[in-house]
Amino acid sequence: MINPTAAMLVIGDEILSGRTQDTNTHHLAGELTAHGIDLLEVRVVPDDTGAIIAAVQYLAERHSHLFTSGGIGPTHDDITADAVAAAFGTPIGVRDDARALLVAHYAKSGGKLNKARLRMARIPEGASLIENPVSTAPGFSLKNVHVLAGVPMVFKAMLASLLPTLSGGTPLISQTLRLMWPEGTIAKPLAKLAAQFPEVSFGSYPFYDNGNYGTNIVGRSKEAAMLEAAMTKLEAKFPPETT
Amino acid sequence: MINPTAAMLVIGDEILSGRTQDTNTHHLAGELTAHGIDLLEVRVVPDDTGAIIAAVQYLAERHSHLFTSGGIGPTHDDITADAVAAAFGTPIGVRDDARALLVAHYAKSGGKLNKARLRMARIPEGASLIENPVSTAPGFSLKNVHVLAGVPMVFKAMLASLLPTLSGGTPLISQTLRLMWPEGTIAKPLAKLAAQFPEVSFGSYPFYDNGNYGTNIVGRSKEAAMLEAAMTKLEAKFPPETT
Repeated sequence: MINPTAAMLVIGDEILSGRTQDTNTHHLAGELTAHGIDLLEVRVVPDDTGAIIAAVQYLAERHSHLFTSGGIGPTHDDITADAVAAAFGTPIGVRDDARALLVAHYAKSGGKLNKARLRMARIPEGASLIENPVSTAPGFSLKNVHVLAGVPMVFKAMLASLLPTLSGGTPLISQTLRLMWPEGTIAKPLAKLAAQFPEVSFGSYPFYDNGNYGTNIVGRSKEAAMLEAAMTKLEAKFPPETT
Repeated sequence: MINPTAAMLVIGDEILSGRTQDTNTHHLAGELTAHGIDLLEVRVVPDDTGAIIAAVQYLAERHSHLFTSGGIGPTHDDITADAVAAAFGTPIGVRDDARALLVAHYAKSGGKLNKARLRMARIPEGASLIENPVSTAPGFSLKNVHVLAGVPMVFKAMLASLLPTLSGGTPLISQTLRLMWPEGTIAKPLAKLAAQFPEVSFGSYPFYDNGNYGTNIVGRSKEAAMLEAAMTKLEAKFPPETT
């Protein structure tokens, strides 16, 4: 079975200027891997309508799912919802069900549902809402594009609402072997092993620990038995040292 | 003056699978901003030659500089150097000056310069080397593409070698105002301010701290006086609360 594929689009000047470290991609990547959806591409673009539209059109056409992060708050730089609607030529406006959520929220919290906040109820026609248990203002899915908040706590909560509704494939499983051998020594036998086990992909990540060079070898596969066999073979070739 | 623009290409299955959090982009973004180069686009692609070539060709053509991170070690999954060479149709092979660096390094460290390690001396024709003071194996610049290591400590060291050699423009400066007002209250006056100061870009980042909603407003500009005037005006409108 071939897994569904996904792309991630991070929207925000604050990432590109170096003010903020994006952590949503890392969280999404782990969740998708466990769910059997293969994340194949990530892009970061500025708060620019043209850049967002171009990226949405390109990525949504090529993948089963596109996730976006950022740009859906109440301020003038929050242009994601309108840009995603424009990418599909879909009309957008304040929608009753989204407004009702905000009305109830501000009635409870004592805040005022002013015009700026009402922008958060702008939902493209035909989209379905994504629940936001943290701060109420919903995300939405328009076709295969899932529009989530940029604040990490809200992004995580929205993804937890959304992910169970998406069909997954076979989870990619991984095994890591921590070897106290330098990468250059392992490289040749590892390449040979990779050729013997085409169902397993191997990554090699060098580290330097307390004066010693070592390498983490990560095997990734959708076939547990193959992965087990490959990693066992690798471990036999490089027995753990007593360093 | 218009600043040079840049893109970043992160290469690695380990980022897309969720094993590793990319931190090189965040570091690069901060350094470029301070140097007066505008980072406008980031992409993450897997360890796949076709994906790397396509991204390199697209990004290198559209920006003054393209920085890459990852895939230049000794193992079979390290395909970045060959892919970058292929993107420009440039021949690649083990180059004498790069080999000499490795020979000296392994003579000193007592390691063996085997065939796998010698891969790290594969440099495209016409490229210039980027010094690696951490682990010797060099990066390189081919035309406007700067190929750096993925290990964060090495990425940082290589960037520190490279950046002073690149012409910068006017640094983007920023000021942050921490307001104990929720984003929805600030949104309208902020939009008005943004219209009054087209030279300043404003970002609005909500937070929740100890039971209170607040917002960090970040102004960014290449014109210090304009930025100062705009932020002073904003502060007068939203005096700090004594919360």
